[in-house]
Order: sequence, then C-alpha cells, then structure tokens
Amino acid sequence: MMDLSQVFYPESVAIVGASDRNIRYYVEAMVEAGKLKVFVVNPNYEEVSGVKSYPSLTDVPERVDYVVVAVPAAQTPSVLLECAKKGVKVVHIFTSGFSETGTAEGRALEEKLAEIARCSGFRIIGPNCMGVYCPESGLRFVNDQPGEPGPVAFISQSGGRAVNLVANARLRNVRFSKVVSYGNACDLDFVDFLEYFKDDPKTSIIMGYVEGFKKTDGLLELLKETCMRKPVAILKGGVSEEGARAAAFHTGSLAGSARVWDGVCKQTGVIQVEFFEDLLDLAAGFMYAKPPGGSGVAVMTNSGGSSVVYADVCAKYGLRVPEFEEETQRRLRSFIPVAGSSVKNPLDAWMAFARGKMMEALDAAASDRNVHSIIIELQPENFHVYSRRALDIRDEMAEIAIESCRNVVKEHDKPVFIVVNSSYYHETERAMAKFFQDAGFPVFSSLQGAVKTISKMYLYGRFKDAREDDHQPPQDNYEGSFPD
Amino acid sequence: MMDLSQVFYPESVAIVGASDRNIRYYVEAMVEAGKLKVFVVNPNYEEVSGVKSYPSLTDVPERVDYVVVAVPAAQTPSVLLECAKKGVKVVHIFTSGFSETGTAEGRALEEKLAEIARCSGFRIIGPNCMGVYCPESGLRFVNDQPGEPGPVAFISQSGGRAVNLVANARLRNVRFSKVVSYGNACDLDFVDFLEYFKDDPKTSIIMGYVEGFKKTDGLLELLKETCMRKPVAILKGGVSEEGARAAAFHTGSLAGSARVWDGVCKQTGVIQVEFFEDLLDLAAGFMYAKPPGGSGVAVMTNSGGSSVVYADVCAKYGLRVPEFEEETQRRLRSFIPVAGSSVKNPLDAWMAFARGKMMEALDAAASDRNVHSIIIELQPENFHVYSRRALDIRDEMAEIAIESCRNVVKEHDKPVFIVVNSSYYHETERAMAKFFQDAGFPVFSSLQGAVKTISKMYLYGRFKDAREDDHQPPQDNYEGSFPD
Repeated sequence: MMDLSQVFYPESVAIVGASDRNIRYYVEAMVEAGKLKVFVVNPNYEEVSGVKSYPSLTDVPERVDYVVVAVPAAQTPSVLLECAKKGVKVVHIFTSGFSETGTAEGRALEEKLAEIARCSGFRIIGPNCMGVYCPESGLRFVNDQPGEPGPVAFISQSGGRAVNLVANARLRNVRFSKVVSYGNACDLDFVDFLEYFKDDPKTSIIMGYVEGFKKTDGLLELLKETCMRKPVAILKGGVSEEGARAAAFHTGSLAGSARVWDGVCKQTGVIQVEFFEDLLDLAAGFMYAKPPGGSGVAVMTNSGGSSVVYADVCAKYGLRVPEFEEETQRRLRSFIPVAGSSVKNPLDAWMAFARGKMMEALDAAASDRNVHSIIIELQPENFHVYSRRALDIRDEMAEIAIESCRNVVKEHDKPVFIVVNSSYYHETERAMAKFFQDAGFPVFSSLQGAVKTISKMYLYGRFKDAREDDHQPPQDNYEGSFPD
Repeated sequence: MMDLSQVFYPESVAIVGASDRNIRYYVEAMVEAGKLKVFVVNPNYEEVSGVKSYPSLTDVPERVDYVVVAVPAAQTPSVLLECAKKGVKVVHIFTSGFSETGTAEGRALEEKLAEIARCSGFRIIGPNCMGVYCPESGLRFVNDQPGEPGPVAFISQSGGRAVNLVANARLRNVRFSKVVSYGNACDLDFVDFLEYFKDDPKTSIIMGYVEGFKKTDGLLELLKETCMRKPVAILKGGVSEEGARAAAFHTGSLAGSARVWDGVCKQTGVIQVEFFEDLLDLAAGFMYAKPPGGSGVAVMTNSGGSSVVYADVCAKYGLRVPEFEEETQRRLRSFIPVAGSSVKNPLDAWMAFARGKMMEALDAAASDRNVHSIIIELQPENFHVYSRRALDIRDEMAEIAIESCRNVVKEHDKPVFIVVNSSYYHETERAMAKFFQDAGFPVFSSLQGAVKTISKMYLYGRFKDAREDDHQPPQDNYEGSFPD
C-alpha cells in the first residue's frame, strides 16, 4: 500500500471536466494557492479560468500526481483508465451518481472504479465528495480557503460540511493541517485517513464527520491508539432510523445505531459530538487550552443571571462550580464591594472589571485549590447600552483582561476559556473575540459551547491519564462517559 | 390591590440618585424615548444629562407616578418615605445590597422597604434589578432600546439578562410588549406579573427567567390558565445545587430542585428551556409561525451532511423526518436530477435552488400528507466559496425562496422555519436573515435552535389541543414532555 502522504502532498494536479460552468472554483482556488502545477483537461475548452485546457489527460506534457475528476458518472471509468496510463497516484472523484443513488447501476459503476484503481495501483478519494484541502501543499476545493496551516485534521464524509467548517473555522482562529471530504469511500475510507493522521506530525487534533465505516477491520484498535496520542472528536451521522436513511442516500453508507456508536466511543476514548458547531468549539478548545486537571470551574461574569445558569449547566455536564475557599473570598472581598456582586463563585464581578482589578480577581480565583479552569464571560452589549463612552475603553479593558488571563496560565497553569456572547453589536463582538484569539485564548460564542467543550476536554484528559498511569484495559479504567 | 397597568404606563418618572456617574443611562434612555415626563432628584447636581435635578422628591413641582431609586441601600427607606408623601404609585429600587448579600442587616433592610410600601399603598419592583422596559409608555432601562412594541413579554429576575435579551432580540425581529427585571421581589413577584400578562391584550407570548418564586399561592392554577391562553416559556435558574447557591447570592432566592420544576411544567404546560438563547428562538418561533399540526418535518438543505444530522436531531427531539410519499418523490424527480441529490426527505436539493425550482420543490414537500412543517437551511458560504459571481444572485434567490415559503403558508397552512447558519460571511448571513425576517418568517442561526423550537411549539400545540378537546385534568391528557 502506498504512503498516503501522496494524497496530501502532490506536486501537480489535473482537473478533468472543469469548465466555466463546472467546478471552475477548484482551478481558481489551486491557482490562487500558488503552490501546485495546475492543469485542466476538457476537450471542449481552450482554457478555463486562465489555465490552458488539454483535450485528454495523456496530452498533458508533464507528470501528473493527482487528478480531480468531474465528468459525468458514466464517463468516469474511461478517465480512470487514462489516469492509469498516465501513472497518476491519487484520483479524487468529485462526480456523484454512484452507490448513493440506491440503484444497482450506481453500485456497479462505483465497484468498477474501485476495481480499476486496484489493478492500476492508484488510490481513490470518493466518489461524490470535495476531496482534499491541504494548506501546505496548496490543494484546495473552493475559493477563499486560508493558506496558513494549523494543527487540526478534519476527516469528513460530507463535502458541504467540510466547506462550511473550513470557512467558519476562520471565526475561531482554527486552522487545519489537512481536511478530506471522502464521500462514498469506494477505496480510501475513514480508517485509512485516521491511520495517516495518527502519525502525521503536522496534526495534533483530529475531527471527524462519519456516516458509515466501510472498513472496520482494526478500527477499534486504531481509534484507541490514536486517542492516546491526540484527541479525536467525531460527529456520527445516521444514528437515528431516519438519519440512517438520509445517510444511505447521501453517501451510500450503512449507518449503525446510536448505542453501538456510544459503546465504541467509551471503549476507545473518542469524543462524541452532536452538532457541527461542537467540532469547532472542541478544535478551538484543544488548540488554545490544555485539558483542565479537574472538574472545578471558576466562572467570572458580570451578569448574576448568567452566573446561576452557568452553575446549572456545568452541573449538567459533569463539572462543578465550587464555592471558593475562605482565603479566596477574603482576597476578593478586599476590593469587590458587597452590594451587587458575589465572590462565592460564580464571581459576579463587574466591579472588578470596572475598577481595574481584573488581574487581582483572576489571580485570586486561579489560586483556589478547587478551581481547575476559568470561564470569563463578556457581554458586548455592556459597551453600548450603559454608556455611550464605554466603547472608548473597550480595547483598554481587553488588554487588561488578556494580561490577567496570561497570568493565570503562567502562574497557575490553569486553562482559561473566554465567552463573548453572540450579539446584536456584531462589530464589538468580533473585536473582543479577536483580541482574545490573537492573544492565544479559545473564544466561544455561547455559555453552552464553552461548558460542553470544557467538560469534554476534562474527560479526555482524565481518560488519557487513566490509561497512561495504569496500563489497564481501558474500559475498566474509564468510567466517565462523554455527555452530549 | 392596585391595577398593575400603573407599573407599565406611568405618565411621569423621577430618577432618584442619578448622576453623571450613576445610572445616567436611565435618564438618557427615557428622555430619548420621548413619551414620559422625566425628573431627576439629586441634591448634589443642578442637572444630569440635560435634565434639571431637584434636591428632593417633594421638591418636584408636578405629580410623579413612578420612581426609580438608585441611592445607597442605607438611604432607601428615607427615599421611600418621601415617595409615600409624594403619592407615588410605583417604586423601582435599582439599588442592591439587601437580602442577596446573605446578611441579617440586608434582609432586615429589605423587609423594611416592603413594610413602608404596604403602609403607604405603593408597589415595589425590586430591589436589586433593572425595572421596566415598555416601548408603548416610554419606560426604558438602558440606552438603545427599540421604540416599537411587539407581542412578547419577558419577566426576568435577572437585570443583566433582561438587558441582553432586549438587545439581541433585535437580531431576531423579536419585539416586546413589556419587559420587567424584578430582582429580589420584596413586593411584586413573578406571579403578579404573570397575572397581568395573562390578561394583557398587548401580550401574546410570555417568556420568563426565574430563580425562585417568593409567592407560590395560586401559582400552579395561574400557570395552567395562562398556558391555555398564551405560550409561557421559562428558564428556571438554580436547579442544581451550585446554581441554587448562586441564585441565593444573586437575588436572595430559594431555588427548588430540577425535578419539582419539571413536574410543575408538565402539569401546567409551561415550556421549559435550558439557555437564554432558547428564549429568543421560541419568541421568534411563536411570533412568526404557528405550532405545527404534527411531528413530521420536511427538511430542505443543500448539504447532504446537514440532512443526515437534521434527521438525527429531529429524532432526538421527538420529531420525524418522514420519507416523502411516492407522489411527492415523483413530482420532485421531474425536475431534480438523480446525481448529487436526494428527494426522499431530507431534500438535499441545491439543484432545485439553482434551477429556479424552489417554488415547485417546496410546494411538493408541503403537499405531502406526512409533512407538518418545513425547515429550509441556507448556507451563507455558498454565495462566496463556489463562485465569486454568486453574490450577485443572492437577493434574487432570496426573493424566489420567500415567494415559495409564502405559498407554503398560504396554500398548505404549514409553518416554515428558516435556518441561516451563523457564518464567517457575516454580512451575507445578516442580509439573508433579514430578507426572511422582513417577510415574516422565523429565522434561526443553527439547526439545533430550529429543531428545539419546532419540537417545543409542536408539543405546546398538542398540549393546548388536548386540553381544549377533552376538558380533562391536564396531567392525564398530556403525555409529552418538553425535551430540552
């Protein structure tokens, strides 16, 4: 079997079937990335988006490592035979109309593609998918994908959601090592990509969206091994009866039951997630914070209502918002007035902000022995509705807050999670989020997102510690279950 | 007992204790609303934000209906005695430092306030709260609150969250009849406001955030009666042990257990919610759609991955995404190509959009007997990443989509829910959301928000129907439970 690095690091790409009306964006996006030799193959065009078009793959005068196929389904076998002739190593089949149609012809055609690949020694991604985005090599599947790499790999059976996740990751300062949308998986499947990312030094966090696993041999062992090295968070689609039907017609997948999947996660350490947004929350969490060493959370907010609901939601997700030790309360009370505040935890402490005591307040909270992580909630509204001059001090307050957060991480080695609530005052929201993101902190747009993430990170940390310490069969050691 | 309309519709307001450094925003906000006579009382100032300041309440030369008190806690009793002398009807005590401090003095001082009110015949809102926002009368508690009224009342024990909800409701086209933040509830409590809103012709949807009920006499009956007339959605804070501790130090409330609250909701028909965001989702849902007549949802999206997860999430929240009838599938297939689409439900139908067949597609889905509501998911990314020209047709496509949605409501009497995913492409997201909001459709920023809302609206509709049809004790009839 070939080294999968050829899937992610080709030097030349040919896009077969591209035209002004068909996947021109692959051509544009890869030319814009500027790292690969890009060829177009389409007998009906002289050029597509400024790139010369060849009548056939064998007419391309240079070596072609990687081919994107976007011709009608019926013509894909002949293109694959050309790929074989040309000595191509990886073929991404964008085209749909195979097993996901639910027809015998569709299934037969897909099997034929796999057969040609097996005989010819190249590998197939797809069919019915968006293929690979790899910032380092310049592979992209749509316009506007960032050129900077990051530590997150995303293995997605859905193309649309891969496009979406990459786009919206920019809001979270989340960047990718590699993203692969692999559709019907007639050859390369989840397990192949996971195997690669397990060892990939450029990847330290793995996210997945899976509808069904075609190859299951060795999957459990591989998941266990990988989870010991890097967090693996997976959204499993098709866990309900109607979701499974949708999965069958989306990627031709046979989805399993929720219960089986739950068992797999518990055995292997996979972090289960429920929504696509959760994947980004977790990616931001793992990128910019370490898993907390315990379940105790200190919450700092300027809304008493929020503070109550945070405590409830933390409890629901297996975290605690422990009452601060007496010493902590004493320290806080020395500069936070009694009226309109609480120093028990949650810390309802607008006054600490307003009086420039953020550093002292956070230092006191982080010194508490029962606190293992800190959530700071910021409301963009506060800079607009109480005083029209408050916006002038927004950036100054953010600087102080960031210094205070850095102190927590440096002096106390405890992770800090920032919530900037999504707001009508969007510009303020974005500015505040960006301040903290640029300073290297994970930012969430809701209480729920932050609490779910901390809970899952904490359980992942506990799972890893238990395995490392005891060398016991994991299912005996790992009692927590990942709530979702 | 006085008519509570005086709480919401005073003609003159005095703000006692306002200064350049203290709640100046009340003065500014109410002057800006331009509907009330606004007086300031503060012996240390000649004027505050351009409004003449009087040395004491009794110096104000005109009648004062409503007073906002923002002097230090220790001085509040003497201000209240002045209120009595002046013949004020409603006193909102902004000041904190009472029972929520957990001290005997705090509790005694709060009891004294209630005592003065009882003897003098005026009513108290608070202490430790933001008071009233009523667009019709011009009462406001912060800058930038909209002047247009709407059908939603919000009864909130938290001030910060009342501020926040009103601000962010603007993103959802949600407008309020009245909002009241009532804090420690030393006199007027949740039950008093609910009683008023039950009969208020300007209110057709009631939202609540409650930490503890001080008055419980008649509460259950009142909740039952009110829920029969109007949807009542409540976020109960302090349902965990640590949440209850936070509630005690926030509003001096004794919060109850999650189980008791769950029982109350099931008996009365109250819609339980988990997060503040859920309140806005429900307000938008009830404002712009009717509860679906059944659990069958048609989902239309252009992401196959989304379609699978929608089906899973619907199942989790007690909804179904039923396979379309044969006739429906036949109609859809007549214009949607087989490759890259599914016409089973979810409808993975970018093609229907792209080919201008939205009207036909939605009409076919809405004609299906198993479908009771429709979700349409729109991805702002699509207008950016696939083609740089696509943005030009965004508005045109939105027009077509809106016409198609109107047809569904008009011809099939089935509610339509729009999801515009929150996106890196914020301007496109907002423009698309606004199109649909202005056309009178509820718009959600996540799959989760839409599905939770539809589920709760459906169960609420079922609950009401069961009560109306059978005149049976509700707990026997109402088998569903509101998931959260």
